[in-house]
Amino acid sequence: MQGAAPGGPESATLLISCPDQPGLVATVTEFIFRNQGNILHLDQHVDTEANVFFMRVEWDLTAFTIPAAAIATAFTAIAEPRQMTWELHFSSNVPRMAVFVSKLGHCLYDILGRYQSGEWRVEIPLIVSNHPDMRAVSEKFGIPYVEFTITKENKREQEDQQIALLKQHNIDFVVLARYMQIISPEMVAQFPNRIINIHHSFLPAFIGAKPYHAAFARGVKIIGATSHYVTSDLDAGPILEQDTVRVNHKDSVEDLVRKGKDVEKLVLARAIWYHLQRQVLVYNNKTVIFN
Amino acid sequence: MQGAAPGGPESATLLISCPDQPGLVATVTEFIFRNQGNILHLDQHVDTEANVFFMRVEWDLTAFTIPAAAIATAFTAIAEPRQMTWELHFSSNVPRMAVFVSKLGHCLYDILGRYQSGEWRVEIPLIVSNHPDMRAVSEKFGIPYVEFTITKENKREQEDQQIALLKQHNIDFVVLARYMQIISPEMVAQFPNRIINIHHSFLPAFIGAKPYHAAFARGVKIIGATSHYVTSDLDAGPILEQDTVRVNHKDSVEDLVRKGKDVEKLVLARAIWYHLQRQVLVYNNKTVIFN
Amino acid sequence: MQGAAPGGPESATLLISCPDQPGLVATVTEFIFRNQGNILHLDQHVDTEANVFFMRVEWDLTAFTIPAAAIATAFTAIAEPRQMTWELHFSSNVPRMAVFVSKLGHCLYDILGRYQSGEWRVEIPLIVSNHPDMRAVSEKFGIPYVEFTITKENKREQEDQQIALLKQHNIDFVVLARYMQIISPEMVAQFPNRIINIHHSFLPAFIGAKPYHAAFARGVKIIGATSHYVTSDLDAGPILEQDTVRVNHKDSVEDLVRKGKDVEKLVLARAIWYHLQRQVLVYNNKTVIFN
Amino acid sequence: MQGAAPGGPESATLLISCPDQPGLVATVTEFIFRNQGNILHLDQHVDTEANVFFMRVEWDLTAFTIPAAAIATAFTAIAEPRQMTWELHFSSNVPRMAVFVSKLGHCLYDILGRYQSGEWRVEIPLIVSNHPDMRAVSEKFGIPYVEFTITKENKREQEDQQIALLKQHNIDFVVLARYMQIISPEMVAQFPNRIINIHHSFLPAFIGAKPYHAAFARGVKIIGATSHYVTSDLDAGPILEQDTVRVNHKDSVEDLVRKGKDVEKLVLARAIWYHLQRQVLVYNNKTVIFN
Repeated sequence: MQGAAPGGPESATLLISCPDQPGLVATVTEFIFRNQGNILHLDQHVDTEANVFFMRVEWDLTAFTIPAAAIATAFTAIAEPRQMTWELHFSSNVPRMAVFVSKLGHCLYDILGRYQSGEWRVEIPLIVSNHPDMRAVSEKFGIPYVEFTITKENKREQEDQQIALLKQHNIDFVVLARYMQIISPEMVAQFPNRIINIHHSFLPAFIGAKPYHAAFARGVKIIGATSHYVTSDLDAGPILEQDTVRVNHKDSVEDLVRKGKDVEKLVLARAIWYHLQRQVLVYNNKTVIFN
Repeated sequence: MQGAAPGGPESATLLISCPDQPGLVATVTEFIFRNQGNILHLDQHVDTEANVFFMRVEWDLTAFTIPAAAIATAFTAIAEPRQMTWELHFSSNVPRMAVFVSKLGHCLYDILGRYQSGEWRVEIPLIVSNHPDMRAVSEKFGIPYVEFTITKENKREQEDQQIALLKQHNIDFVVLARYMQIISPEMVAQFPNRIINIHHSFLPAFIGAKPYHAAFARGVKIIGATSHYVTSDLDAGPILEQDTVRVNHKDSVEDLVRKGKDVEKLVLARAIWYHLQRQVLVYNNKTVIFN
Repeated sequence: MQGAAPGGPESATLLISCPDQPGLVATVTEFIFRNQGNILHLDQHVDTEANVFFMRVEWDLTAFTIPAAAIATAFTAIAEPRQMTWELHFSSNVPRMAVFVSKLGHCLYDILGRYQSGEWRVEIPLIVSNHPDMRAVSEKFGIPYVEFTITKENKREQEDQQIALLKQHNIDFVVLARYMQIISPEMVAQFPNRIINIHHSFLPAFIGAKPYHAAFARGVKIIGATSHYVTSDLDAGPILEQDTVRVNHKDSVEDLVRKGKDVEKLVLARAIWYHLQRQVLVYNNKTVIFN
Repeated sequence: MQGAAPGGPESATLLISCPDQPGLVATVTEFIFRNQGNILHLDQHVDTEANVFFMRVEWDLTAFTIPAAAIATAFTAIAEPRQMTWELHFSSNVPRMAVFVSKLGHCLYDILGRYQSGEWRVEIPLIVSNHPDMRAVSEKFGIPYVEFTITKENKREQEDQQIALLKQHNIDFVVLARYMQIISPEMVAQFPNRIINIHHSFLPAFIGAKPYHAAFARGVKIIGATSHYVTSDLDAGPILEQDTVRVNHKDSVEDLVRKGKDVEKLVLARAIWYHLQRQVLVYNNKTVIFN
């Protein structure tokens, strides 16, 4: 398995991207080895077209001679001359996730079931909605539910309130679990590659509203779902995960919706898993997923 | 779509099997047509090897001239001379389902999420368990949780108590949502083709306990799950649904368990759906599923 | 199994569509029953939105009292008052298929392998191409290869030659096995719902040229292929079959092409199978596939 | 993409397994870096249960300062103290593959189609069979066909002839493309992890003869195929690849065979691809596949 699952040893994970050049793997692994770190997982990838190098390395901190707080500084000496963009994560740090919903509950139920079963290493301090429908579910699971009625007029203002609330709760990333509102560029800018959406089609087919109706009208034999990071372009952000399910002429639009819901919730759950496991690097509006 | 989804018109469904003979479809459809029934769905199948005919027909009762209570009697005149085995169901009748669980919650959460979202036309009057672990979940959803501690010595006795409880609550069928007890032939006999199990392997591979460990040891590249009706032969009853997911060398046993859980809950949910929609005919320890 | 596989008894197949009305199944099956036909397969479907009824029925002709040549006339009495659009096919009639190719051989090899193994009940009297590349393959399999060099200027003229050739060889339907030319509306009109194309994307995503390059640029996690009947709208005809395969960041455009080829050839083969088995009804630019 | 595809630069690939210990990645990558090699692909894996380290690294030889013929000797200094088991491959070396067949042609056609299209970097100097059926196909493709009639009495003797023939043609590995003979341990011993078989079930379900009949009798909802290295245990060798396809009650045994054939040929082709790309490491009767 990749990444910091519940129960593993205390570990650190580096996510690196930089211009490709000889010796990158040797240099990074030598840094870890020299300081008594034992590598748990290592993945690398080179986009030969773009000439960009990507790496994810996770190592056991048990015997590591550099204290956690000093690793970033120590690594800067390696990163800077090689123009590395990098992130450092510790398995001891439990990410804080906010869930945004509207009226449909299938993704929310799925997320909360995993959360309460301890399947994920995450905190969910609050659920945000533009409708009252999911309040009862949230309360069932003991999670505060904050409602923001959204109109054309108050949208930006309400989003600013939402941003303030997220900051106040130290939210690391946001999951739009069939949240039926377009996020403004201003809000996206506050959480770059930190807002995960689920769209109910295999993008780039059927962008926008009512994809199941469009799929039915076109007579497709497969439908799908796509989870992606939200950018300021509607349904056009970096894709995290996709999956499909077979349909046929007997399926009405309602059947597509029913079958699609099961794909949506699994695709979203996998995308959240990759994000939580620190397996995702974004480049050129695409993702490298080291899983 | 097949069957009585929430919101459709009042309908009747006939499930028929009999020795194959000419004129069966003509006779049954003529019976419905003559009495002003409008066919909503019709499926038939002939097992040419076994020479058995299977049929499912669902029709709108709105203009049907025979009252619901008299249909069975009227149909007997057709069924008897042709040696038909048949069932008659009405969409107005909401089935009552009991869920049996042990310690794992993923299937239970999935079932309860669908139940409370109104995805299924079913009642769940009670949850039965041999452990206390899922009591909190059941209470969250407001469903009575009845615990039966099971030992080698008291098993048959406890099962008799369970049967009595199920009868008392007019339970139509039972779902074993990762219930980790073998059901005795005596209990199976009370609910023939009415106990749905989920087994965490693609049967007939990895029968019995710890299939994920066995799959890991064998080094398979796909794992799966199987939902079947329970018979007195362990993991050998008629299969309702199966599905698989890809794994690789990076997956530990824990990863197989994690990935497998998602397959299990979807496979079980689809099996329950077929059963609820009255789409299942059983013959020769196999299922015909008209979906 | 559905349809006239090699080796089955002599059978007839009716494909019917008409406005939905009570008694349709009863009337058609009674017609077959009364004349001593034994139904082998029956499928029906109602598009409740469009209020259209679809039916496919195949019956054993062994004891049928109406001679094959007189069935169409006899059935007209049933069809006309109900405004049925219908086709009658006999399993003894082996369809004649022409394959169009350009430079890529994967679909052609797959088709010819199935053909020579006797997997399909079909004749392939000729292969047509706008390039010389596949001549050697055709000759290996002993099938005449006819080349039409196509330029902007001579396209319509060459197509007229192709149409004449197809008519002369009594071709029933055409398969575009990665034929890299757009078929003119004039040619489509000669073979309505009788030209099967394979497009190398999961339509409606990535219409037009170079879909694998577009998929790579978008960073999708699944790619696919679509087989459809050709209409005068590019890549917009009724879809016969689709399938997908998973890709990831490690896959270059060349890898997408390689993985996609395997999907293309299977999807195309399945579409041809449905067509050969007379399982396809077209309505509203969509297909009903009774398989 | 992984590995030496047609058209890439001249490269070397190391496949390594050894007891896990700190510094392995650093040491190997430093060796390549120091000698001016540019890493094209690197994958590593640790089986934490067995405490075994696996690595595949491929590097561009263009500027590498050690001549190809001297690399093995140079690397021995690194490998020996760390108890490494290792293989060194050069992309310039084109592997030689023999195909064994019996009476069924679908896998053979698929292999030959890929071979002649140049999809694989491989030579196929001969096809071996225990039946005359596939001679015509082989001759179509211009490949010598050598027939060995096999009886209970002459089996070992004939196998010895086959081994001699394979050695004489410098065959690197053997593909059993639905070859319906069990390979003796003596022959397996000559080609350890170099005989690739395709079995027509998702192993370990339905080991042995007639798996489609067994699958039909059991009433499974999915069937599959498995490609594995042949060991002296029937159908129990290390699994290279598996895949499945959905079936239902309408499918006869013949339909399972037909649908299964398409899975078999794709699964076998993928297994051959992994082997050709030097992506496979075998340990504990399981495979690590770095693709």
